Amino acid sequence: MSLLTVGSIAFDKIETPFGKTEKIVGGAGTYIALAASLYNNNQTVISIVGEDFPEEMLNEFRNRKINLDGLQIIKGEKTFFWSGKYSKDMNSRTTLATELNVLEHFNPIVPEKHQITDYLMLGNLSPVVQFKVIEQLKVRPKLIAMDTMNFWMDISLDQLKKTISMVDLIIINDEEARQLSNEYSLISAAKTIRKMGPKFVIIKKGEHGALLFYEENIFHAPALPLEEVFDPTGAGDTFAGGFMGYISSTDNISFENMKSAIIHGSALASYCVEDFGIKQLQKITKKDLENRICQFVELTKFNVIDSVK
Amino acid sequence: MSLLTVGSIAFDKIETPFGKTEKIVGGAGTYIALAASLYNNNQTVISIVGEDFPEEMLNEFRNRKINLDGLQIIKGEKTFFWSGKYSKDMNSRTTLATELNVLEHFNPIVPEKHQITDYLMLGNLSPVVQFKVIEQLKVRPKLIAMDTMNFWMDISLDQLKKTISMVDLIIINDEEARQLSNEYSLISAAKTIRKMGPKFVIIKKGEHGALLFYEENIFHAPALPLEEVFDPTGAGDTFAGGFMGYISSTDNISFENMKSAIIHGSALASYCVEDFGIKQLQKITKKDLENRICQFVELTKFNVIDSVK
Repeated sequence: MSLLTVGSIAFDKIETPFGKTEKIVGGAGTYIALAASLYNNNQTVISIVGEDFPEEMLNEFRNRKINLDGLQIIKGEKTFFWSGKYSKDMNSRTTLATELNVLEHFNPIVPEKHQITDYLMLGNLSPVVQFKVIEQLKVRPKLIAMDTMNFWMDISLDQLKKTISMVDLIIINDEEARQLSNEYSLISAAKTIRKMGPKFVIIKKGEHGALLFYEENIFHAPALPLEEVFDPTGAGDTFAGGFMGYISSTDNISFENMKSAIIHGSALASYCVEDFGIKQLQKITKKDLENRICQFVELTKFNVIDSVK
Repeated sequence: MSLLTVGSIAFDKIETPFGKTEKIVGGAGTYIALAASLYNNNQTVISIVGEDFPEEMLNEFRNRKINLDGLQIIKGEKTFFWSGKYSKDMNSRTTLATELNVLEHFNPIVPEKHQITDYLMLGNLSPVVQFKVIEQLKVRPKLIAMDTMNFWMDISLDQLKKTISMVDLIIINDEEARQLSNEYSLISAAKTIRKMGPKFVIIKKGEHGALLFYEENIFHAPALPLEEVFDPTGAGDTFAGGFMGYISSTDNISFENMKSAIIHGSALASYCVEDFGIKQLQKITKKDLENRICQFVELTKFNVIDSVK
């Protein structure tokens, strides 16, 4: 099934306690598209880059059957750039530089033949841009999912709520869920957010896993305990990309299938953080993924059925 | 199988965002014994109280088949008293008063007929007291488990390490594990702590659940997401008590059975926090517990076996 992915494609420069990078390819759209491409070979990306963006990376997207008809390449301008440094425990990061460049005036254009899509994933971007993409679609997709961040809650809450009201699923982290809902308990937060529109809410808790809320149901997925997190950049986007890649390729939006999608997204995210940037995502094979999925099963399985009889 | 439980029996005075209590019965030993009594009716408690301790509560222990031969009741003295206030988000608490009273000179005495026990649970107490109990046992129990807290790491680390070296299982929270091991990653922390002696390490992560480490195996149990935590006092002790009650009553210390024990302990802890102090533990029935266990199964079950084929 077709998947339309919207998100930034960027250069990142990252410093962690384990080392630092030069300018490397990053951006929510990049992580989402690479992760989703492990499941879905009918994906189109809507994004924008400058003429400094490497042709080599565009070819890698194409090799992964990622359609770039919706990618604007702006002559004479530069690609969005972000630089950040992680704290020793990796639990916080400081932004050292943000150069919006081409992203500043990004007006997303969905090519006509992609205005009908089965699935839509809106990566973290201005809620205006996310809204404009939804508006251009001729038929409502089977599932619209979105990510966002506290920055948009701070400066653009009304527009954000308008965009949220139009999606089926929102994927955010625990802090963002608390800020958006003004509720501390994540159960109460999810209830409040579901009243804003989305039927499904996924709250990511970093090293503590993720929660999926739908009607009266809750599913809890653990994160794989890792001895070392090398670089957390893009883990959330990789999770979302793996999730939507799995959902769109299986073409099933039931609560049960979403659980499986969360395990797949979590498995991919656990790989992503093992090296800088997209390095691991570029390397991972189906076999690697299977092994990691098995680790999730081992990690969580228990049998108490007999014990309560 | 027989279970020997060592821990403080106390008065608590608690303030949470939902209200406050007068002096109520508390203490690690109380929570552990009540929780374990739901599984095991061959339990003996080693502890100390003053003559102000209510006969009514002693009778409740006796009704639950908790043997009090090892409980010292000190004439003319007062029971240990703790008073604390929780922050609005329940994630931190301030101690308002600590009156050691009888606990200050507590010299635990294990009655001769309980010097052979199948299982031993050392609740959070001075590591000297914990050590003295182990010393009095004539035969090594099938499993010795202990709890502790950062306070003992601050003031009595050498004695604490000596006690830790003699137990099979240590149950501590994430902050304590990090402090004890000087490692941030919980996997590394568990490795370091296992080198100190215990074959099994359980790291409690509060609302994020618990991890069990044994050799190369890890099990992750979620905590039940709760809309409201009314009073977190005693949740960790209830978890430990449920765990050891289950293990001792099933008489099985395999990794698989420990997983079930963690789910039982987590289910009991999720009840405990729904009201002040021991109120919920006094009320809970086998049927309640079964229902909650089923909620844990619902919360965590997923099927990805087909999806990786």
